Amino acid sequence: MGGIPSKAPGAWKMAMKIQSVQKVTDYPYLNLFETRYSDAEGRDRVWRFASRNDPPQCGTDIRKSPDAVVIVPFHAGKNRLVIIREFRLSIGDYQYGFPAGLVEKGEAVAASVSRELREETGLTVTRWIKESPPVYSSAGMTDESVTLVYVECAGEPSRLGNTASEDIETFLVTPDEAAALCNAERAKLDVKTWLVLSVYGATGKIC
Amino acid sequence: MGGIPSKAPGAWKMAMKIQSVQKVTDYPYLNLFETRYSDAEGRDRVWRFASRNDPPQCGTDIRKSPDAVVIVPFHAGKNRLVIIREFRLSIGDYQYGFPAGLVEKGEAVAASVSRELREETGLTVTRWIKESPPVYSSAGMTDESVTLVYVECAGEPSRLGNTASEDIETFLVTPDEAAALCNAERAKLDVKTWLVLSVYGATGKIC
Repeated sequence: MGGIPSKAPGAWKMAMKIQSVQKVTDYPYLNLFETRYSDAEGRDRVWRFASRNDPPQCGTDIRKSPDAVVIVPFHAGKNRLVIIREFRLSIGDYQYGFPAGLVEKGEAVAASVSRELREETGLTVTRWIKESPPVYSSAGMTDESVTLVYVECAGEPSRLGNTASEDIETFLVTPDEAAALCNAERAKLDVKTWLVLSVYGATGKIC
Repeated sequence: MGGIPSKAPGAWKMAMKIQSVQKVTDYPYLNLFETRYSDAEGRDRVWRFASRNDPPQCGTDIRKSPDAVVIVPFHAGKNRLVIIREFRLSIGDYQYGFPAGLVEKGEAVAASVSRELREETGLTVTRWIKESPPVYSSAGMTDESVTLVYVECAGEPSRLGNTASEDIETFLVTPDEAAALCNAERAKLDVKTWLVLSVYGATGKIC
């Protein structure tokens, strides 16, 4: 492994020490939390972050199951990568992204992937290509973790599974269309989707 | 462009309509916001999200400059990809990621990239490879946007630029080390970093 130590991250001496973690809002799905910690020079400091979990990830020792799945679906029959365009309230506009959704309590990742892909696009998972471990969306702001799952899929896109809070359109894209979308002046894209589309655009491969 | 419409996303008829956006906490760096909107069936609903901006992205028409930069640094002299391992309060543990940081008020993206790379790793930008547009970290939870910047860099890693709230170690990794880290049992990784490392591990290329 050369440059990368192989022991568990928790085994390193930590220069910063968490003293307490407190929930400072009380909403049903998303809250702010306040961490009090001592920095590398022993000074007491405060850091706030957002979490859907209670307790949040920093209150637990182990890497838990992911908050959400993000699906990279390749339509084998049409030889195209599947993306969606969805209205996102946080940005007040449509965003190009991958089908994704929260893992329900007690639900296995594979079940969540099949359900979300069907609900959001009408397509069916036909082959599991690979998956990531749970990885973090933006740990400077939130403990949100996602598992990326690459699958092959089949079927015709449909909006019949969308709920009234979902406004989703499905697109099957070629590598040239993917490359163009990555550089489109006005399009808004999810960061994971931009990364996969830019590789697909350059190489024709999704992984 | 085949499957992808080329008109601006804002030009589509929106099935959902935002009625109001209100800040519901009052902290200095990160807050929760509450959007009241009517869904596709005309019902009034509420959605909460986190933002470092005031007003948040959904209160504006245009794609603004990014909240943060995320740097993908390739060390040309040592022929290795640069990653960092940083303590992250939200997950209470060390995470492997790329050098990154908030863009300061009035700061150009290029200046932010040079500053963050130097502060976090001690390395110097020598060549700009490419950059993404501002893309969104996780629009189901936050309007946070980042610009991904691929650069070549030079120098020896150093922790001299770390502040007392930063606990950062720099690693220069080969494709084999990157592939191993993507599958390591106990390692915690940022999602963008996992995506780039898995391509680098398979192909030896970063983009």
